[in-house]
Amino acid sequence: MTKIVVDAMGGDYAPKQQVLGSVEALKKDKDLYLILCGDEEQIKAELAECKYDEARLEIRHTTETISMEEDPMKAVKTKKDSSMVVAFKILKDGEADGLVCSGSTGAVITAATLILRNRLKKGAFRPALCPIIPNYRGEGTFLCDCGANLNCAPLNLAYFALMASAYAQAVYGVENPRVGLLNNGTEDHKGDELHQQTHALLQKIPQINYVGNVEGRDLMYGEIDVMVADGFTGNIAMKAVEGCGKAVSTILNREYKRNLWTTIRAGLSMDIINNIKNGLDYEGFGGAMLLGFGNTIVKGHGNSKVRGFSVCIQQAANAVRGNMIGKIKELLDNVDLTVAEETDKESVAE
Amino acid sequence: MTKIVVDAMGGDYAPKQQVLGSVEALKKDKDLYLILCGDEEQIKAELAECKYDEARLEIRHTTETISMEEDPMKAVKTKKDSSMVVAFKILKDGEADGLVCSGSTGAVITAATLILRNRLKKGAFRPALCPIIPNYRGEGTFLCDCGANLNCAPLNLAYFALMASAYAQAVYGVENPRVGLLNNGTEDHKGDELHQQTHALLQKIPQINYVGNVEGRDLMYGEIDVMVADGFTGNIAMKAVEGCGKAVSTILNREYKRNLWTTIRAGLSMDIINNIKNGLDYEGFGGAMLLGFGNTIVKGHGNSKVRGFSVCIQQAANAVRGNMIGKIKELLDNVDLTVAEETDKESVAE
Repeated sequence: MTKIVVDAMGGDYAPKQQVLGSVEALKKDKDLYLILCGDEEQIKAELAECKYDEARLEIRHTTETISMEEDPMKAVKTKKDSSMVVAFKILKDGEADGLVCSGSTGAVITAATLILRNRLKKGAFRPALCPIIPNYRGEGTFLCDCGANLNCAPLNLAYFALMASAYAQAVYGVENPRVGLLNNGTEDHKGDELHQQTHALLQKIPQINYVGNVEGRDLMYGEIDVMVADGFTGNIAMKAVEGCGKAVSTILNREYKRNLWTTIRAGLSMDIINNIKNGLDYEGFGGAMLLGFGNTIVKGHGNSKVRGFSVCIQQAANAVRGNMIGKIKELLDNVDLTVAEETDKESVAE
Repeated sequence: MTKIVVDAMGGDYAPKQQVLGSVEALKKDKDLYLILCGDEEQIKAELAECKYDEARLEIRHTTETISMEEDPMKAVKTKKDSSMVVAFKILKDGEADGLVCSGSTGAVITAATLILRNRLKKGAFRPALCPIIPNYRGEGTFLCDCGANLNCAPLNLAYFALMASAYAQAVYGVENPRVGLLNNGTEDHKGDELHQQTHALLQKIPQINYVGNVEGRDLMYGEIDVMVADGFTGNIAMKAVEGCGKAVSTILNREYKRNLWTTIRAGLSMDIINNIKNGLDYEGFGGAMLLGFGNTIVKGHGNSKVRGFSVCIQQAANAVRGNMIGKIKELLDNVDLTVAEETDKESVAE
């Protein structure tokens, strides 16, 4: 049985969507056990209308919630009985194999840092967020980092590449993932100092299947598997693609609702329209994996609904079953970046 | 008569698409006069099959071409008889009112800097590239900068905001353009030092209708008119949206060609499909305006074809007729950024 702990109170539509998503995940996966942290009364109210295997779901009552707007550090330190902090404690104590939370990103990273205290490496090593962006081949591009680290050094990005590669291989079976560096052009001389140095460094690491600089457009082309980015740039790229996906949905809806004749044709073309929407549907790929700690942590999208949240839970379970953490550790242990670390030391973001 | 000089040899499909695009622009605009710089024989070969008003088109024969791959500085300095350098000299000499080129971005900026020598301000002022990104309201978002400046200081970005606002107002009639700062979140504390400082600075400038931090997704939402970005981040965002647009086109084509029944429905829905594609069609908005020099310069997309290139020419003519340069100068003259310039001096990117 794979045990996943869920923060049922985090997210724009919590706890309803989180509870219903948990129930959906339980239905689809008979080898899954869930611990839901949150307000017992509210969770039970949502569960009351659901059919599910009660033997595989338990509730841990908590009295506090960390909101999206709160200062992460202060919230994690003071709200000891919040659903998020309690969920991380359950993970730390080994009661669960993985954690899913769609609450504040900053608070999730802070909670992982302060409560778990098991960063996989010391020194110029930073945990990173890795979402999967749909591409038009129907596959996904692993984007790492998308916002955990605003200021990066080249060595940070090398570790992002290693971790995301191990994740793609362990959980999605991507063999020898092709890695590109998100830059403002493909030529060798492109980018600022950080990106020029990172481009040079990535070429020297045999454990990374580095194909070179790539551009924003490559996120959706499917010619690379892993896109490495500093967290600021990765965040911009991810949200630009999200916005474009939403724009397309909006235009589709508008065009097909223009008048009776367009509506009739919409009815005729519903399968095609759905395929287009699915092709851009990031929710179907789950949440961002928080890589770099000794536990499996999935950060769901803040606006997660039933289906998206249930995919996040499945994603966490698959990561546990695929031994993602073990494979990341193995890769990190077998790579020697001391030379890079030495030369890099002064420019490393602390 | 508005005179535009055209580099007929710059771009992936030059000179064919540039020459045909010029002819199309002449047909649509009876008050337009074009000077085409490039290989006379090649240009005449393309013109041979066209009908156009010969009294409004002249050719300036040049013997060299600057390619996309060349080092911009070296190319502009040594290729004195290249179509691009000659076009910029014609602009400088006042023989033309504006310039259009879809060649190498780096070379265009270098040529403007070395040949025109009329940057609108000294000090912490940098020219910037401003493309228009389609949004789902059917309007465009002015993105400035999208790649001319990789390393920026807050004051640079304040000038981008001023120039893009004047441009949007002068050429597209956008009154009091709403300006957002591209950042990794909307909250006040978001971003690295550059973006935090820029956010604080933009609020203090009464000539900028600043609405606050925005995200990558806002490029296509249409709730702001101008998005200010450092050139690196702006480039990433622009290309991410481009890639998404291409992905949607690809998915649409694939879905509708799946079998006979989907093809029939594609035929029935061609108007809708075209509206969706047009909704994401950045070519329809022309090229990037290179803002910050004393002349009108439009940098067309490298892969411009007939229609896209003809829109670029129209865009340059409209900028001339709308007195864009005069309005940018007026705005720059009436804003007092000395305080910001003083405090900012040490962090300004040179």
